[in-house]
Amino acid sequence: MPDGADRRLSRRKLLSLAGGAGAAVGIAAGFLSQNALSAAAAPAGEPLGATVPFHGDRQAGITTPAQDRLHMAAFDVTTEDRSALITLLRDWTAAAKAMTAGRTVGDTGAVGGPYDAPPDDSGEALGLAPGRLTLTFGFGPGLFDKDGKARFGLEGRRPDALVDLPHFPGDALEAARTGGDLVVQACADDPQVAVHAVRNLARIGFGKVRVRWSQLGFGRTSSTSRTQTTPRNLFGFKDGTNNLKAEDTDLLNEHVWVTAGSRPGEAWMTGGSYLIARRIRMHIEIWDRTSLREQEGLIGRTKGEGAPLSGGTEFTAPDFTIKGRDGQPLIPLDSHLRLAHPDHNDGVRMLRRGYNYTDGSDGLGHLDAGLFFIAFVKDPRTHYVPMQMAMAKQDVLALEYLKHTGSGLFAVPPGARPGGFIGEGLFT
Amino acid sequence: MPDGADRRLSRRKLLSLAGGAGAAVGIAAGFLSQNALSAAAAPAGEPLGATVPFHGDRQAGITTPAQDRLHMAAFDVTTEDRSALITLLRDWTAAAKAMTAGRTVGDTGAVGGPYDAPPDDSGEALGLAPGRLTLTFGFGPGLFDKDGKARFGLEGRRPDALVDLPHFPGDALEAARTGGDLVVQACADDPQVAVHAVRNLARIGFGKVRVRWSQLGFGRTSSTSRTQTTPRNLFGFKDGTNNLKAEDTDLLNEHVWVTAGSRPGEAWMTGGSYLIARRIRMHIEIWDRTSLREQEGLIGRTKGEGAPLSGGTEFTAPDFTIKGRDGQPLIPLDSHLRLAHPDHNDGVRMLRRGYNYTDGSDGLGHLDAGLFFIAFVKDPRTHYVPMQMAMAKQDVLALEYLKHTGSGLFAVPPGARPGGFIGEGLFT
Repeated sequence: MPDGADRRLSRRKLLSLAGGAGAAVGIAAGFLSQNALSAAAAPAGEPLGATVPFHGDRQAGITTPAQDRLHMAAFDVTTEDRSALITLLRDWTAAAKAMTAGRTVGDTGAVGGPYDAPPDDSGEALGLAPGRLTLTFGFGPGLFDKDGKARFGLEGRRPDALVDLPHFPGDALEAARTGGDLVVQACADDPQVAVHAVRNLARIGFGKVRVRWSQLGFGRTSSTSRTQTTPRNLFGFKDGTNNLKAEDTDLLNEHVWVTAGSRPGEAWMTGGSYLIARRIRMHIEIWDRTSLREQEGLIGRTKGEGAPLSGGTEFTAPDFTIKGRDGQPLIPLDSHLRLAHPDHNDGVRMLRRGYNYTDGSDGLGHLDAGLFFIAFVKDPRTHYVPMQMAMAKQDVLALEYLKHTGSGLFAVPPGARPGGFIGEGLFT
Repeated sequence: MPDGADRRLSRRKLLSLAGGAGAAVGIAAGFLSQNALSAAAAPAGEPLGATVPFHGDRQAGITTPAQDRLHMAAFDVTTEDRSALITLLRDWTAAAKAMTAGRTVGDTGAVGGPYDAPPDDSGEALGLAPGRLTLTFGFGPGLFDKDGKARFGLEGRRPDALVDLPHFPGDALEAARTGGDLVVQACADDPQVAVHAVRNLARIGFGKVRVRWSQLGFGRTSSTSRTQTTPRNLFGFKDGTNNLKAEDTDLLNEHVWVTAGSRPGEAWMTGGSYLIARRIRMHIEIWDRTSLREQEGLIGRTKGEGAPLSGGTEFTAPDFTIKGRDGQPLIPLDSHLRLAHPDHNDGVRMLRRGYNYTDGSDGLGHLDAGLFFIAFVKDPRTHYVPMQMAMAKQDVLALEYLKHTGSGLFAVPPGARPGGFIGEGLFT
């Protein structure tokens, strides 16, 4: 799979549609979709024809303004051949570069022939606009060692921060929704574009990887840029008001990006981050029978505006000291806002990028619905484990309304340089 | 839950946003979304602020130009009390009327108080535009009788056409994805709007219904109007090129709408239709390793244009007689196009309204992905069972690449009159 963009069939060229998509950046002006109804569905000011650059110092899909839809998949690597793994990462990089630019995978695309070979691209995104697709790759603990034995010659290369997450109180993790050697986060404003991307990466990996778990998210629950408004989770509350945002450069350096200074064996992670994924089932049926007063007390914010119960509007800083006429703090001591606030967690911050999900029925007469939590942090040992341990023990919300059913921790290397591949530093 | 629209909090009013949404029709001009990025994602010419009228001779969501996203849920009715069932249908009707108009459910909505009661609306659609939401309701066989005994005083009211579907060769139906006494099809251009609607209907039904199954579809696979272009399924092919469309009034009367003339006990279905739902797993990993030539032969159309292999463009009528140099028909005898064509099925037509789905992993290293098939027909005995039986026996596509894992058949009554409720004719 050579990496020559000019040799590829673009989805646009293929369909003889006009369009001047920039090489990697910007908006395909005049984009005309085959599937006009879908493809024209565009975020305000960001047409579905918009693309996000693939190359960069960081991988895309972290500080990129959160797209509306998610398909994330984790894979088990079934080969033990180092060169096969490197080939896979090279092929995935080439395919990701093409798809995020709105092109089909491979030299022949979905319909270019030869007729007696399988197409290079599965085709269901033909005519769809790029939808700001980003593909973000990460490496799980199992890529480095399994059953105490190093894999792929990666002795000493597993970062210390890529821990095996501890068991948290209340965890009800399902093996089929947990772990994975590789992860791909596909985010786009059109879900079919995200699904197409994951499906084609799985196709390219045939014989080397197996899908371990796969998760769709239908609605973003975080903003990652000040250009976005705050979305709502399935409790009906605004979520992530105080999330770290792309504009918070200093805070991102402090809390999200891995900086140099770690031991030499993990220098390949400089400029990267750690992705924590948690599938959090919400007991929405119980929540829906809870009074508005109790809901607001559990969250610590008003439901409509999302203002802290201490007063103000959504972005007013909470004041944990103000007390009501009953002498109790207006923001209850056991509210989620208080327990999750940096003031009560050694000042740590996360960049959250989660999505609402609904996966059919739970077999007990309820929707299986909740939050697919995604966060990026500099070091999960300081920036996730302590807070999650505290929440799992004290947060009434977590204790009574949430159940963690899936989990994953992945080292997300820095961006690929042009001509290179994702995670290249790990293999040099 | 009174049915006075003027007494309800609208999502717009609630957020003090401008907007002149028509009573039930048209486009909310100047709609300003709280969640601007999501809400502004609008089909071409059909802003996400657009609403579809709830009342009418027919239910909406059948000939409505197919929205991009689906959430369908089937429910078991757990009460045996006729008046409780009628109350549920009245409450669902009122809620459906509010939500399809972009309003919250109930008098107090999501945040209107009283503070010591649960809110009337769960709130996650606050600030989202209506997204052309439609809610379409149907009644399964189990609403009429169970274990040979009539329910709810409905002796003699089960329509003859509401059969128990036969076992088709190759069926691998899972009980937890099959059947149901009631069904709700929620279609919208914003998936969070569709999920919110189903979730609130489930909430309203607490104590009377249980969710039996629930299915999200991320991409439409049918056009139901000539204003739409043909979308692609997960085989990468255009799907439903020859689907019945809203503009085909005579054909709809012939093939989709139930007309008078049935026995008196089923007169309540006049103006209604029958909804067939089939969850069809696609073996996409095998498909993806099939040559382009074989893919096109199995479908009977070209992959890019979607033209019949006998020549022309997408909407050219197939010519099953033209032979190639090898003396074989250009459209193979066992192609899906040929086997599914009305010419080979007694002229019957369906209005298809299916969606692509992806539901995680199959536990065997593959994506669990496929087509959630939905069709509306006048009578499944003539318009579905014979064709499906033939396809299940002869269609190479069905035999080698498809597996039916879920199924449902539902009687879809006509539209509710203002002041009335869905299915009212069944109870009078």
